[in-house]
Order: sequence, then structure tokens, then C-alpha cells
Amino acid sequence: MLTSQRFGDQPAAVERSAGKGHTAAQEVRVEILTIGTELLLGQTIDTNAAYIGEALAAAGIDVHWKSTVGDHEARIREALRTALTRSEIVIMTGGLGPTEDDLTCRAIAAELDRPLILDQTVLESIRRRFTERALVMSGNNERQAMIPEDAAVLPNPHGTAPGLAIRVGDGRMVMAVPGVPSEMRPMLKEQVIPRLREVFGVRSRIRSRTLKACGITESALDETISDLVRLSRNPTIAVLAYPDEIHIRLTVKTESELEGDRLLDDLETTIRTRLGEFLFGRDEERLEEVVGRLLLGAKATVAVAESCTGGLVCHRLTNLPGSSAYFIRGEVVYSNDVKERLLGVPHELIAEHGAVSRPVALAMAVGMRQIAGTDLAMGITGIAGPGGGTTTKPVGLTYVALASDDDVTCREYRFLSDRDTNKLLASQKALDILRRHLLSHRHAGPI
Amino acid sequence: MLTSQRFGDQPAAVERSAGKGHTAAQEVRVEILTIGTELLLGQTIDTNAAYIGEALAAAGIDVHWKSTVGDHEARIREALRTALTRSEIVIMTGGLGPTEDDLTCRAIAAELDRPLILDQTVLESIRRRFTERALVMSGNNERQAMIPEDAAVLPNPHGTAPGLAIRVGDGRMVMAVPGVPSEMRPMLKEQVIPRLREVFGVRSRIRSRTLKACGITESALDETISDLVRLSRNPTIAVLAYPDEIHIRLTVKTESELEGDRLLDDLETTIRTRLGEFLFGRDEERLEEVVGRLLLGAKATVAVAESCTGGLVCHRLTNLPGSSAYFIRGEVVYSNDVKERLLGVPHELIAEHGAVSRPVALAMAVGMRQIAGTDLAMGITGIAGPGGGTTTKPVGLTYVALASDDDVTCREYRFLSDRDTNKLLASQKALDILRRHLLSHRHAGPI
Repeated sequence: MLTSQRFGDQPAAVERSAGKGHTAAQEVRVEILTIGTELLLGQTIDTNAAYIGEALAAAGIDVHWKSTVGDHEARIREALRTALTRSEIVIMTGGLGPTEDDLTCRAIAAELDRPLILDQTVLESIRRRFTERALVMSGNNERQAMIPEDAAVLPNPHGTAPGLAIRVGDGRMVMAVPGVPSEMRPMLKEQVIPRLREVFGVRSRIRSRTLKACGITESALDETISDLVRLSRNPTIAVLAYPDEIHIRLTVKTESELEGDRLLDDLETTIRTRLGEFLFGRDEERLEEVVGRLLLGAKATVAVAESCTGGLVCHRLTNLPGSSAYFIRGEVVYSNDVKERLLGVPHELIAEHGAVSRPVALAMAVGMRQIAGTDLAMGITGIAGPGGGTTTKPVGLTYVALASDDDVTCREYRFLSDRDTNKLLASQKALDILRRHLLSHRHAGPI
Repeated sequence: MLTSQRFGDQPAAVERSAGKGHTAAQEVRVEILTIGTELLLGQTIDTNAAYIGEALAAAGIDVHWKSTVGDHEARIREALRTALTRSEIVIMTGGLGPTEDDLTCRAIAAELDRPLILDQTVLESIRRRFTERALVMSGNNERQAMIPEDAAVLPNPHGTAPGLAIRVGDGRMVMAVPGVPSEMRPMLKEQVIPRLREVFGVRSRIRSRTLKACGITESALDETISDLVRLSRNPTIAVLAYPDEIHIRLTVKTESELEGDRLLDDLETTIRTRLGEFLFGRDEERLEEVVGRLLLGAKATVAVAESCTGGLVCHRLTNLPGSSAYFIRGEVVYSNDVKERLLGVPHELIAEHGAVSRPVALAMAVGMRQIAGTDLAMGITGIAGPGGGTTTKPVGLTYVALASDDDVTCREYRFLSDRDTNKLLASQKALDILRRHLLSHRHAGPI
């Protein structure tokens, strides 16, 4: 996925305030240690590690290592031991629950050689939780109030398992939070990160911005901006390729947010100059949102006749709140009969060229525009696969046509993927054709 | 998500055949090492590690450790070194691409002290890939043909980066595959796993089966089978809830596949007896596939008129190869005008009850069936949100109607989620209504 990435040689994110056991020049290494056999077996995808990594990066703290072990005391201890040899901060998540295979707290206590001591405050808060919900507390829950000696307790407002923060020798620190995302996330943001920023005197912040491109191959994009990718240090540039689009992520590390934004703006301008209309959006913006906004801005309406995409283009165009202002009607026309009767595609055209052909796509777009009475209409026909291909018309062959007031055009594609991806790619091309049409007619009168 | 899990106390999965450098009693430890700074920063969620963990578990090979490092040669080497001290098999993924920060191959060669040698066969296959696509090969791609001495090359049919398998001392083994999922997945199944099973003489296998339910709440399902979840040891049961469906995963560990299948069959029968038609499918089966098969079996045709789902039901119904046999036509009717003109929904009905109402959904289904000439037709109208709701008709209110030869019915729902999820939930209900109709008419003559 990631084709270019320039983080490895960056200076470390964290600076320490003097007098806290570290000098400013020394690098703070952070390790995330997630615990759970289900993570090793792939039954649960480790979204916690990604969430923690992203939240720490945004707070100016780089993660250097990430490891996972199962619910197995000896291995948790071994992983913690390894982590403490190479990292200053170890953030553990998972294994703090009330059941027998929740072993994190016990493993930490054993590995750091600290006895487990019943914490009355924690016990009280667990008791209160149960009373408030009129539930009976089990002995297992009492076990959750056993805390390693000298550990600071991180209260858990959304569950029974408290978090832990333990100072180890040499200014190192072990923190543990539960693995349930709804409990872990607020604890991380409200307790773990502020504590880390304070202890390590972190001032700088990381800000990211993603520019999204489509209609260009990864290698062509790479050629266009490879010097920037190679030379940019702050912000750095990472290029991520997906089947239907390419993301360019700019990441900047500064003390002031204003300065960070300025640096991101400058680099974005440079990239925009080179990539022009291949860039369709930023950050969370989806292609269909951009198209929807352009349609609204142009006060234009659209209708779509889809064959191989089977409704996906309509689905995407209607993913936006308020899409009824521009989306008027969609037709999913699988049979030739409906193409003829409803859209007025001439029978002879299908007989001569086949349903998957440029003339039929054009006729679908024109016919759709006529019956829907819209400013714009699209016609899409293709072979999504895996069956239905021939030597002259292979699987993936797709025609996308756009009819407007003054023109009707059609483009041909040959997608090489599976049915789902071919449908996705065709829908992406259709939306991109719509976007480019709207862009080029933005200041040119009627759509 | 994962609400019940009982793996912690299971014995290890792997046994070795005698005479292969390991005794049967000794445990094979496997470590997955994923490489990519984007994984540490949380920009990409590590789905590869989960996929590999699951595939290995299914093959009877337990993963003991999982670690992640950034694109940083020294740290990749350090991680590999640590892995080789505690694991017999290290499976690395990522960092094999053509760009400058793809460092995995170099790090392996350096850490294992093997020179990189140009592999002519690999070079040729990369060249061929480029020639076939009429693309120009860059010097960077040539770099991908530099292979550590004595490494076995694992061909990559879907990309330029080959995989590696290297025997290290003491019967240990390092394998590396690319990080692009579409390249990694087939290489893992076709090359890595067979090699591991052969080398380590793995006999016991873990088999999993997922039963999928919809139309029942998580707590109701939990109540129905909680005793089984609690008591089952082999197979174990895990329940995973998603917005639109619930998965029940059964996992069994046996030496014989036959015995494993028998145990899974028995437990599945028990669960089926309790959950009946709430269960719609198994494993990778999607709800739309089940519906498609039922339609094919009944030789029935269907058409869909969608308002709030905006094409999603059509999209899902056409995700299946061969869907043109039953899916005839879809209408995405956003405007009242089209509902009236095309589907023949009486103007007075919309005026009196509003477009989002039971009578209009019923009229849409009936009208759609008439104009499409299908056995079955659906009408879906609702308020996907976030805007458009009122006190009497809140966001999420949705009507789903089904018209058949002898009947037309409609159900009302109130979804409480965001626009995307409300659309998904409505499409799920529509497909489930279709499924239940087809099931109940399976042996009862005309659809």
C-alpha cells in the first residue's frame, strides 16, 4: 500500500523538559503492547494499536515499536521485558478485565517485582458501578481492585477495569489501559496522553493532511512528485495507493499549530500546481461528496443509467445528505429489453455492437437524459465478471458515457480486477467524469 | 465487539513430525513481523497481521508473537533479531516494494549476513510483467531482483516483489512476503503455509466456521445461546456483533479434519435448532448471495424501487456473478414526480400520507412489479438522515414493501444511526425480507 514514506530518518518527536531525568537531546521511544490471543489468531483486527499510534502521533509522540502477545502470563512478562530494554514508555492495552484469562495486571506486578495490594478506592468505585446498575458484583470483579504497589490508578469512567501508570527506573514508565475500545479511547485521550506530555515535556504537535487523487496511475503520480517525496522533511510526504484512488499524506511537526498549517498550505500549493485536477479532495472527503458539491454549485441535476455497476453509482451519489437536490433518478438496467423499451436504445444498435459497446453507452446516456429531464445523464455498460467475457470483449471492458446539453462523450476502460473491484472502479470513473465535466464547465455557462 | 472468547486455556496447536529437527513435544513458535511506519502511526490498520494469524491458525499453526516496526533498517534488523531469539518461524510482511524506503530485503540480508545477489529468473519475470503491460521498467524495479544468498524465491503472480524463504540455523526459518494484501494473500495460502506445514510436519488443524444471523438483537441472541457459549470447549464459540448482522464463530482443534467437521456439524445443528431462520448463512456467504441463490432456485425474478437506499439494494443484488438471471430492473426514485409517473403511485397517496409512508411503499412495490413484469418487486422509502426528520416522522423511519403474485406486505423500521449505516440497515432488512419470503414459499408453489 504505502509506496513512499519518509519517517524513518526524522528526528524524534519528543523533547523532554530538563530536570525530569532526560535531556532534551535524548530520544523517547514508545512501545505499544497489545494483549489478547484473539489478536494473534486474527479473530479481532488490532484497531486499538492503530488508534493509539494515531492519537500519540497527533500529540507529538512517535511510536517506535508495536507488539502483540496472547493471554499467557509468561509471554506477557517476556514482551514487557523486551519492551523495557528498548523503549522508555510502554503502553499496554487489553487483559485487564475480570475473567481468568485477564493476566496483564498480574504479569506487570510479577515482572516489575511489586506486590498486588487491594486498592480501597478502586474497590469502592467498582462496587458503586454495580450498585448503580442494580447488578450483583462477583468475586472476579474484586480481583480488579488488586493494584501493583506504587502504581498510579487511572480511573475508568466507562467500565470496571482501572488503568495503571507505573514509574520504573531510569525515567521509564509502564501504562496499562483496558482493551475495550469504548473504555480505552477516552482514558487514552484524557489520562494517558496528558500524563505523557507532562512527564516528557512534549511541546511539538503533529498535524496531517491528506490530498486525494484519482484518474492517474501510481507510477505517473510518483514521477510527478518523487522529488518532493524524497526531499521534504517537514512536512513529510507519504503516498498510499488504493484500487480506486491515491492518497498523498502530508505530516508536519511544529510547536505552533499556525506554523504547521502554514507549512502544510505551502506544500499543498506546490503539489496542486503539479497534479492539478487529478486531485479531487482532502482528508475525509469522498469523491461523491465533491461531485455532489459541484452539482449543487452548478444547480445541475443528474440521472444515471447503470448496467454493470448495478446501482453503485446511484448509491454513492445518494450517500450525501441533501442529494435529492441534484439526484433525480437512476435506472439499473440489466436486460437489453429494458435498455430498449425504457431508454430507447435502438434494437439494431445492440444487435450490431452488443450491449457492452460505445454506441450503446452513448444511447443509454442520451435516453436517460431525455426521460429524466435532467441537465446531465450517465450511461454505464460493461462486463463486471468473472464470467461473460470474450476475446474481443474481455471481462473488465467498460464504457462510461456522459450526456449534457451540448455534448455526449464516452470513455472506454479495461479493468483487471474481481467483480467487486471492477464495479468499484467503474463507479469511480463515472463519478470522476462527472467531476471533470462540472469543473471544466464551472465558469462556462450552461452545464 | 468480541463478547465471548475461550482460547486462553487451550493447548498449543502445533505438533512436529519426528526427524525434522524438532521433537513432537516441542512447541513451534511463530512470529509475525509487519513492517511500515504507517502501521505505527495508525494511518493504516494492520489487517495483514490479522489475516496471516487467521490463515495460520486454520492450518494448525499458532502465532505466538506479533510485532511491528517502521521503515527503518536498524529497527527492522533489531526486530528480526528479537524474533529469532524467541520464535522458530518469522513471517515478515511489507517493505519489499521498489522504492527507497522498502528496506526489508536489505535488512534481512544484513542481519543474516548474506550478500544480495541478482536473481536472473526474478529479473526476467519482472521484465515480462512490464513488457506485457507495455510499461517502462525503472531501475528501482531491478533492485527487487536482488535476493539474499541461498534464499528460496516465492514467486509473486500479482506483483513485482518476490517473496523469500530462508532457512536459518537450528531449523528456524525466515519468510518474507509483500505487504500489498492482494499480493500477500495468495502467496501466503499457496506458498508460505504449504511450506510451513511440510517443514514442521503439522498435523493438528484448527477449523473455524462462522454462522451469520440477522433480524435478531445481540442480547436476544446472547440469551438464546449463552449456555453454549459458556460451556463449549472444543469447539469454542465467539459472538461478534456488527451493525447489520451477528456472527457466531465456532472453532475446533483436532488432528483429523473429519473429526473436526463432525464436532462443528453437531454444534451447528444445536445452534440452528435454537436460532432457526435468524441464521442466514455461513462463513464468507453474504446475505445477497443467499438471496441470489434462493431466487435462482425458485426461478424467480425481482425488481427493486428504492428511495432512501438510493441504489444500494440493487448494488448488493448485482454483486453476484450471474445475477442477471434474476435481477431484471431497478429504479432509484428520489423525486415524488418519478414515483408518480413511472411507478404509478397515486398523487393523492403522497399528498395524504407523505412520500415516507406505508401506503407509498406498498404502491411503489406494486407499481414496480407491474412495469418490470417480475415475480417479485420491492418498494423502499425512508428518511436516511441526517436532515429531513420531523416529530412524527423521525430520521431513520423506513418502510420496506414486497409485492408478489398473491400478496403485498410492508414493514416499518426506525433506525437510529448515521446516514451511511441507516442506508445499510435498510438494505439489509430489504434483502432479509426477500430471503424470508423465498424460504417460506420454497415448497409452496408460485413465488
